[in-house]
Amino acid sequence: MPLKRSWVASANSAETDFPLNNLPCGVFSTHRQDARCGVAIGEMILDCRRAEEAGLLFLPAGPLFAELSWNRLMAAGPEVWSALRARLTALLAEGAAERDHVEPLLIPMAEARLHLPLQVAEYTDFYAGRQHAFNVGTMLRGPENALPPNWLHIPIGYNGRASTVVVSGTEIRRPLGQTRAKDADKPVFGPSRRLDIELEVGAVVGTPSEMGRPLSVAEAQRMIFGYVLLNDWSARDIQAWEYQPLGPFQSKAFATTIGSWIVTAAALAEFAVDAPPPEVPLLPYLQEEAPGLYDIDLSVEMHPEGAAARIISRTNHRELYYSAAQQLAHHASSGCAMRTGDLLGSGTISGPEPENFGSLMELTWGGERPLQFTNGVKRTFIEDGDVLTLRGHAQGDGFRVGFGACSGRILPAVSFP
Amino acid sequence: MPLKRSWVASANSAETDFPLNNLPCGVFSTHRQDARCGVAIGEMILDCRRAEEAGLLFLPAGPLFAELSWNRLMAAGPEVWSALRARLTALLAEGAAERDHVEPLLIPMAEARLHLPLQVAEYTDFYAGRQHAFNVGTMLRGPENALPPNWLHIPIGYNGRASTVVVSGTEIRRPLGQTRAKDADKPVFGPSRRLDIELEVGAVVGTPSEMGRPLSVAEAQRMIFGYVLLNDWSARDIQAWEYQPLGPFQSKAFATTIGSWIVTAAALAEFAVDAPPPEVPLLPYLQEEAPGLYDIDLSVEMHPEGAAARIISRTNHRELYYSAAQQLAHHASSGCAMRTGDLLGSGTISGPEPENFGSLMELTWGGERPLQFTNGVKRTFIEDGDVLTLRGHAQGDGFRVGFGACSGRILPAVSFP
Repeated sequence: MPLKRSWVASANSAETDFPLNNLPCGVFSTHRQDARCGVAIGEMILDCRRAEEAGLLFLPAGPLFAELSWNRLMAAGPEVWSALRARLTALLAEGAAERDHVEPLLIPMAEARLHLPLQVAEYTDFYAGRQHAFNVGTMLRGPENALPPNWLHIPIGYNGRASTVVVSGTEIRRPLGQTRAKDADKPVFGPSRRLDIELEVGAVVGTPSEMGRPLSVAEAQRMIFGYVLLNDWSARDIQAWEYQPLGPFQSKAFATTIGSWIVTAAALAEFAVDAPPPEVPLLPYLQEEAPGLYDIDLSVEMHPEGAAARIISRTNHRELYYSAAQQLAHHASSGCAMRTGDLLGSGTISGPEPENFGSLMELTWGGERPLQFTNGVKRTFIEDGDVLTLRGHAQGDGFRVGFGACSGRILPAVSFP
Repeated sequence: MPLKRSWVASANSAETDFPLNNLPCGVFSTHRQDARCGVAIGEMILDCRRAEEAGLLFLPAGPLFAELSWNRLMAAGPEVWSALRARLTALLAEGAAERDHVEPLLIPMAEARLHLPLQVAEYTDFYAGRQHAFNVGTMLRGPENALPPNWLHIPIGYNGRASTVVVSGTEIRRPLGQTRAKDADKPVFGPSRRLDIELEVGAVVGTPSEMGRPLSVAEAQRMIFGYVLLNDWSARDIQAWEYQPLGPFQSKAFATTIGSWIVTAAALAEFAVDAPPPEVPLLPYLQEEAPGLYDIDLSVEMHPEGAAARIISRTNHRELYYSAAQQLAHHASSGCAMRTGDLLGSGTISGPEPENFGSLMELTWGGERPLQFTNGVKRTFIEDGDVLTLRGHAQGDGFRVGFGACSGRILPAVSFP
């Protein structure tokens, strides 16, 4: 599909993340306006609340934009999502008759503050990157036993903490926790010294499912409203000591940063690609007919305090082994009820080569190979003042469907107790 | 403290769970009235919404009972909790001047349907029963390596699923899932064959904490509004195959049943007991000054289809190693924000002897020693149609502070796919 041209000039640039083909969903405020839903178009944001109030959106149900998140629209289901997308496309397209009514509802993105685009119901983090699982397993158990026995059969995941999912730009406090040195017989409590990122893409559940009713992969795919960039901040030293036998807990609970914009499944549809062929046959409830991954280029930029920022990793969403729809089907397989606003992290997306790895633990191989920056600055894990930024976009023919940035700066740990 | 006498005659019985000393918090509806907050008193429920509307409660903030859960009151903090408790005690005490105004606001419990008393923000399940951890570890790894190395240092827990926390009386659908037989090289998908309970007590977080700010144990204790009975239904066969390396997921996600009544920390205060002395010194952030466990007698009744019900286990809350305040302090230690309505499961509470074990896996030692019932009925794990009921109460001098029942019947698995 070519670029859809808009009368918003900045949306027609080949460089913008937000052409008319995208229309991602965010929540913004300005110094004059309280927080509300908006859609990005070029360098502007369309105020959806005012558009709805002005009667421009023609939605079958409503009001859908009276609240501070996209959850109500998300709960309304795929037909309403399609109707909104079609209507917004018509309103913003080159030559739109309604331009004079719509133009006053555009706010420059530069004047807006962005908030969490959804109210996160629950947050689940998966582990669907084969290279990542292999890398981590190799460091822990050696290459022969790297993949856990269930890995090729189950899209493994664990429940994370929703209360600390924050929007891009939120400063992140270095976590405290229990750690135990390799040769020590007792743990200590203090700031994490192995603070890391995980480059992930989060799937946002739109329509809910009932308790006691499993979902097919096809049903699950129709329930996914869209995707966000997701940085699953991780304290590796806390994780190593706490995670047996019940999994990661405080090592992941202090913060998860998501991008400001939910890129809809509809906007990504033309970039869909098949997951790799399973290495062993999947059980029928996990078999996927439609392509469930996307050709999304992803990168991690690290900006250490006192040095120039640089890209430390480049990878792609298609490096995953399981799709979000497969993860969601597995999540509901026991009868677990899924809710509007559930956020499913993909798991760290590492590509095949060292420069494609999606965490510092992998990029520096457990801290053994420091990354080099200008001014002689080196990093193994994150130091105070460092800024980490994820970016992602799908490349179309003369345009791109992008996610904006997913960024966070690390603050020093608090003094406690 | 002796029985506080009430003008509600049924509240003065030594047998009732709900004397004036208790005043637990629930949500009820009748065929005439929609769901609302109420307090149990003997065989009656006091309608808190109508009491507030009638101006009887004298609360400093409000309205606190306009919603369908206790969350708003819980968020109001310990001073408001105390004020409410004092006022309700005065209104319901023998000789209360307001009796004529209050009596019309009482509804017979027998005519009420009970709902979830709180809106569960997030659900965390801990593993704080020493005997339970030892039993499970012994079955998995032998008695020498039964306790994980971190167990005596960390109140281990994992995030559970809040969307499937249901109230006592809700029928539970047998979960489906992946399991792998011991000698098989591939998993299968189907109904769990090792469906189990876990006898727990859940702590309900009242006041929230900020992201990035750890909590002392004393602060954490003041944030706990009350306690509920909690049955952490578990599919042992799904759990065994899925739980490495990220912990329990679908094996626990299908359902968690809580009792209908939140017994407040204030009502339990006189039954507080110290946790056992730590076997190794705890890190300072986990050291507890005030007693954090309670002398609560707990039981599990099993009613297999086709046989008579009987008690299969008796234990006590004081068998735990860590208190809910210690768990909450650990939960916030990384900077994890805690929210009004967070529910913290204690972990399975097993006492020292086999008849004190809090799960069927322990009671039948992995299915090796079936339980015997009338009519020659035997059980290792739960079969369809069986009803499991937890009960608990603290015994005072001539009265008891009880939790009511926490009950669930198992329905056959759905056919899927």
